[in-house]
Amino acid sequence: MMQKDKHQIVIIGGGFGGLYAAKALKNENVNVTVIDRRNFHLFQPLLYQVATGGLSPGDIASPLRGILSAHKNTSVLKAEVIDIDPEAKEVVLRDGRLRYDTLVVATGVSHHYFGNEQWAEYAPGLKTIEDALEMRRRILLAFEAAERETDPERRRAWMRFVVVGGGPTGVELAGALAELSHTTLKGDFRSIDPVEVEILLLEGVDRVLPPYPAELSAKAQQSLEKLGVTVRTKTMVTDIQDDQVTIRSGDETETIKTRTVLWAAGMQASSMGHILGEKTGVELDRAGRVMVEPDLTIADYPDIFVIGDLANFVHQGDRSLPGVAPVAMQEGSYVAETIKRRRRGQPSPPFEYFNKGNMAVIGRNAAVAESGGLKISGFPAWLAWVFIHIWYLVEFDNKLMVMFQWAINYFTRKRGARLITGEAPFPLVGHEPIKEDAAEPQSVPVR
Amino acid sequence: MMQKDKHQIVIIGGGFGGLYAAKALKNENVNVTVIDRRNFHLFQPLLYQVATGGLSPGDIASPLRGILSAHKNTSVLKAEVIDIDPEAKEVVLRDGRLRYDTLVVATGVSHHYFGNEQWAEYAPGLKTIEDALEMRRRILLAFEAAERETDPERRRAWMRFVVVGGGPTGVELAGALAELSHTTLKGDFRSIDPVEVEILLLEGVDRVLPPYPAELSAKAQQSLEKLGVTVRTKTMVTDIQDDQVTIRSGDETETIKTRTVLWAAGMQASSMGHILGEKTGVELDRAGRVMVEPDLTIADYPDIFVIGDLANFVHQGDRSLPGVAPVAMQEGSYVAETIKRRRRGQPSPPFEYFNKGNMAVIGRNAAVAESGGLKISGFPAWLAWVFIHIWYLVEFDNKLMVMFQWAINYFTRKRGARLITGEAPFPLVGHEPIKEDAAEPQSVPVR
Repeated sequence: MMQKDKHQIVIIGGGFGGLYAAKALKNENVNVTVIDRRNFHLFQPLLYQVATGGLSPGDIASPLRGILSAHKNTSVLKAEVIDIDPEAKEVVLRDGRLRYDTLVVATGVSHHYFGNEQWAEYAPGLKTIEDALEMRRRILLAFEAAERETDPERRRAWMRFVVVGGGPTGVELAGALAELSHTTLKGDFRSIDPVEVEILLLEGVDRVLPPYPAELSAKAQQSLEKLGVTVRTKTMVTDIQDDQVTIRSGDETETIKTRTVLWAAGMQASSMGHILGEKTGVELDRAGRVMVEPDLTIADYPDIFVIGDLANFVHQGDRSLPGVAPVAMQEGSYVAETIKRRRRGQPSPPFEYFNKGNMAVIGRNAAVAESGGLKISGFPAWLAWVFIHIWYLVEFDNKLMVMFQWAINYFTRKRGARLITGEAPFPLVGHEPIKEDAAEPQSVPVR
Repeated sequence: MMQKDKHQIVIIGGGFGGLYAAKALKNENVNVTVIDRRNFHLFQPLLYQVATGGLSPGDIASPLRGILSAHKNTSVLKAEVIDIDPEAKEVVLRDGRLRYDTLVVATGVSHHYFGNEQWAEYAPGLKTIEDALEMRRRILLAFEAAERETDPERRRAWMRFVVVGGGPTGVELAGALAELSHTTLKGDFRSIDPVEVEILLLEGVDRVLPPYPAELSAKAQQSLEKLGVTVRTKTMVTDIQDDQVTIRSGDETETIKTRTVLWAAGMQASSMGHILGEKTGVELDRAGRVMVEPDLTIADYPDIFVIGDLANFVHQGDRSLPGVAPVAMQEGSYVAETIKRRRRGQPSPPFEYFNKGNMAVIGRNAAVAESGGLKISGFPAWLAWVFIHIWYLVEFDNKLMVMFQWAINYFTRKRGARLITGEAPFPLVGHEPIKEDAAEPQSVPVR
């Protein structure tokens, strides 16, 4: 039970930032409430594995209540935050209000389409479990459609995949897609050969993985090309339709026939950014992210912290910190430490991000990694990548399963989770809704 | 590539029946086409594990193409059958027609509500992956709602689960639900104690597991009661609404306040049954299942076999064969053998089901099993159950994973797959559709 007189800390968002803040407050004599609309923490860096059938949603998500079960000072609230009231120090839920002494906002970002929201229908993004399952569905259905298509040109359009965005998500997605086509699905079809698939990775600037050192970008591109991925840099998408993508490189415009476009570009703050902007007057960046102070608070509101992808931190280095899990984790821990120091009347140093390295995985055993001047690639980088990811997964749950799954995938090249789901739950045949204007009524009386 | 002059065998449905028929035809000089609306075989006996968060969909489903990849005489067609034309010997797809020399129909059954289709909204059934995820969502959301509800009576309604139907599915579901509440979720909540959950299992006849020997039914009921499940036999459901279930036992009518009703009763043939009835004049039973001949064909149509749950086979024992996986498997193999014998001009004996035994699992290490006069229960039965299920799973895929998952669940009592999914893919806050008539517009301009 909560004691009303204790310091109330409300954390909005159960991602890496929010969870690390909560974890570091475990033994503090305060009340912590973690609010999330979903009941689970999602290990987003592996979402592309779900999208390509390598892992199941349950492998990369862990119930928040389970993770925080042993934190006796912490409640989990599955609820929707629709506003905040910084003067009354309250969070406004869809069905109630919650008082806070300290507020931590860690609601992240979603993908967006640079003002072309109509593209969403043809080019799904990758931020949620549902997004990943939708991508998986489209990818697998494309092979099914190609198998049945007899017109060679239309078949080629089904066999052509376009990934928009050459950041870590786009690179990992393109690599996994190449592996799925070239090894996992081999022999599964009778009319098509999945090896004939074409995978295009489009990136606007002059190299993939733009936040990483140029050398790693080059290695990543080599690895992708070895897997059969065509990488096109300095290329902008100008239009996406049901059956084609229009791109521009320099002055040249080109139309590519494809039935599957995967969106790994563009990011926009969750609406909490705008709510904070409106209610506190804090400056937002172009993507709607909150410009935070050196201690991750909002100017003039020392009791409101903003962390993770939603925060734009410009006080270190020559540009904003990237929106990656390690930044969010360190920010979460820092906020918890700052709260503790304040309660003891101690001063708090400004936040400083320690970059342990960057890595991206490209296919089954090629990855690129860079850590403190050390740059590795190929199988050693892949191994490092696997172990680091499992290390963090294990921290949240007994996700040893994922290691076994990968080991088995690695040796068998199988992807056991390549199910097409999400259609209406119908039995095998004939349960389509009867169209009233159909020439031949298909209604069958049930005895 | 298919040779047109070869004997064409079309199998509709990739469940146990269809798959066993296809498997047994592997080395025969024929063309086999397996048609299914889904791209995967579903291991239905474990669907209740997905519904209660113990396993992920990927653990109990396997892509049909992968299973049949090595069968060079076999194609998989992801398509929807909307009719058959027995005179032209063609299957009518939504987008084409397919000729057959021999047709095997194995499209199974779906659940139904005895003419009360309005109950479907409040009491989801358990036949598909989507059904299981919907059950999981409702079960987990009920605990979330109870945690937030302050009115004691309404909270009790959230903490009360009613399972309708005491067959294997209902019994296994109730047992898994009890375990989820009593052990897995223990300590996860702050306002409620999941142990206080009430689970009611309702059965119309005088005992649970009616097709099994009476002794096993008694053992099953004891095991359920030990887990805290209230079993009510001779009880009929007369109404289901959003917040209550009305039941009748003898002359007494009672209303039970509950927010979660799980449907494990009632079965109805897939519409293929009625199509066959209309086109061939074959007799159907009350549930729409096809009354088959002793060799599993349709009267006067020796080239059409009906197997699995869709077939009603009355030529052995004093009643129809039950709708369970072993019956479907043996029927599938039998049909394949019959086809081979016919091609060699040999006579075929009538189908005979060999019952290896029956089993149901109730909670973590209690099961009841009966095999050839041997009746076991408790942990030995559980072990037998686990190994038999894994045996069949492994046959289809490298599902050793499931064994590891169970081993880990067993020792940690965790259920890693207890995610609430299926909501709209939104970021954490504020992306609800704007209601135009809302008093305070919540629209936030995006910069």
